[in-house]
Amino acid sequence: MTAAVGTAARRLVTLDDVRAAAARLAGRVHRTPVLRQGGLGAAWGVRLDLKAELFQRTGSFKLRGALNAVLTLPPAERARGVITLSAGNAGAAVACAAACVGVPGTVVMPATAVPAKIAACRAYGAEVVLTDGDLLETYLATVARTGRVPVHPFDDPEVVAGTGTVGLEIAEDVPDAEVVLVPVGGGGLVSGVATALAALAPGTRVIGVEPETADAMSRSLQAGAPVRLPGARSVADGLAAPMTGQVTVDHVQAHVERVVRVADEDILRALALAVTRTKLLLEPSAAAPLAALMTGVLELPPGTRVVSVASGGNVDLALFGRLPTPEPTHEREVP
Amino acid sequence: MTAAVGTAARRLVTLDDVRAAAARLAGRVHRTPVLRQGGLGAAWGVRLDLKAELFQRTGSFKLRGALNAVLTLPPAERARGVITLSAGNAGAAVACAAACVGVPGTVVMPATAVPAKIAACRAYGAEVVLTDGDLLETYLATVARTGRVPVHPFDDPEVVAGTGTVGLEIAEDVPDAEVVLVPVGGGGLVSGVATALAALAPGTRVIGVEPETADAMSRSLQAGAPVRLPGARSVADGLAAPMTGQVTVDHVQAHVERVVRVADEDILRALALAVTRTKLLLEPSAAAPLAALMTGVLELPPGTRVVSVASGGNVDLALFGRLPTPEPTHEREVP
Repeated sequence: MTAAVGTAARRLVTLDDVRAAAARLAGRVHRTPVLRQGGLGAAWGVRLDLKAELFQRTGSFKLRGALNAVLTLPPAERARGVITLSAGNAGAAVACAAACVGVPGTVVMPATAVPAKIAACRAYGAEVVLTDGDLLETYLATVARTGRVPVHPFDDPEVVAGTGTVGLEIAEDVPDAEVVLVPVGGGGLVSGVATALAALAPGTRVIGVEPETADAMSRSLQAGAPVRLPGARSVADGLAAPMTGQVTVDHVQAHVERVVRVADEDILRALALAVTRTKLLLEPSAAAPLAALMTGVLELPPGTRVVSVASGGNVDLALFGRLPTPEPTHEREVP
Repeated sequence: MTAAVGTAARRLVTLDDVRAAAARLAGRVHRTPVLRQGGLGAAWGVRLDLKAELFQRTGSFKLRGALNAVLTLPPAERARGVITLSAGNAGAAVACAAACVGVPGTVVMPATAVPAKIAACRAYGAEVVLTDGDLLETYLATVARTGRVPVHPFDDPEVVAGTGTVGLEIAEDVPDAEVVLVPVGGGGLVSGVATALAALAPGTRVIGVEPETADAMSRSLQAGAPVRLPGARSVADGLAAPMTGQVTVDHVQAHVERVVRVADEDILRALALAVTRTKLLLEPSAAAPLAALMTGVLELPPGTRVVSVASGGNVDLALFGRLPTPEPTHEREVP
């Protein structure tokens, strides 16, 4: 795809940036395994691997970007501590990143956030600011009060470089991947993965998948610029970003083949089947690409070698009590 | 421990038997990974690995024993097909084993069995006989009608040799294991694991864990002989065997340090925490040893290197909707 029309040329994250991030993160994040899922793939006519970021520290890929962002702050800034705004995985990631480098962390969360996610941030030693009021207003006031440095959940080149390490590992572990499927919220993960693969495996097609009801990236690509989508909602809570950003839209335009949309109902059906077959505790966001495989919207040739990024596993267990009954079978493959 | 008093000396399964089983099963069952669980282990003061048999074909370790039993049948017997009686994992295992060697399989199940488990047996091509009446009576009548060869779910030396391959792999992958924890139902798994480890790693202590309300093995050890326990019930359905057998009691007496009991309530608490922390879809049986770690009943020295056998992952997802809220934290380790 072409660069955004009518904007000044912006520098894209490079493979060297991703490699620098990988060196920085080594020993601080897990190198997660790729798990072969022959049975589940066969059900959908493809050869399927899952990149198991649900095994990442903090239970999602988010730590890679957050920690790279914190590690690349100039020492004087870093010493002020970091702050973010999140109801979900980005909060725990920033809290963990702050603890990892030994600086204070603050997470501003809605008072309605899942108690386990609030407690997770606190377990990493972060200060948690809860609000019933306007989240952004509280966030800005807390930034002003604390003087801490904001870490954006996705729209930051260092976050993209950090998430790019997922792509590096996929290129190493599955050199014959034909299609890589990536869940899309604000677009940080897909931007990084596509950046690494465009350089290392230009024949590999990177496709983003987002919820129909939280399709800020599809709308941004149509508009040729970031959009806001305050009403974004999805059962895949990690993908319900109310906006994209210039950094992520630029990278998606440059490196991502396309972004497709899936219905929440299909995400839940794919989740039920995938959890039953893979024995992995996927969160709904991680099942969005699997929903795209399941519905056939991707129209992949039979036997295509697909890697799907299982982005996280932080899920309210009660959800599993409400899933539709999956097709019954127990056969599966492992690496 | 000593051999059972007052019985003729019985031949125990040997390391050679287990190695022969491993050669027979190679390429037909998965060599499952050992997954390091630093965070979860730290919560309980030990260094913890999980032997991930939930990734085994059919979703549990049961295939190893069933398939070895079928493969060691004389050709003329094998050609008659095989039959078993099971509401759970052993049924799918025998169905899969029969399909694997290309002979007919029959599984007699209670009509109340989980529909997904019935369908799993059928998906492997087995004939499923459902009954509302007396299960054993129906089974014996079906054996007589079909002429198929019974495969016992645990009390058979070839089943023990097959499950022993789990112990072989643990000895290879975690040579410094100090304690290996194994869920106990009828005792087939613990018999095999202990047989292999007694030969390969005599310093490794093998401890069995069974539900308080389905403690046939503890009672058998006390009695010095197999017992029947028709009222056995547990949330760990895979461990609610209504009896032990002479083969398994002999092996447990010979090679297992001790068998401890855990309450169903603790199994559920351990399950909730373990699933949340490991991101693995464990079935309750697989959490029984973790409950023993959690309650401290094992009194292990801090830092003990423990391998716990995660025996299976075939679980009704609705159960997760009813689990107690786990302690909130997201940190964990992977291999």
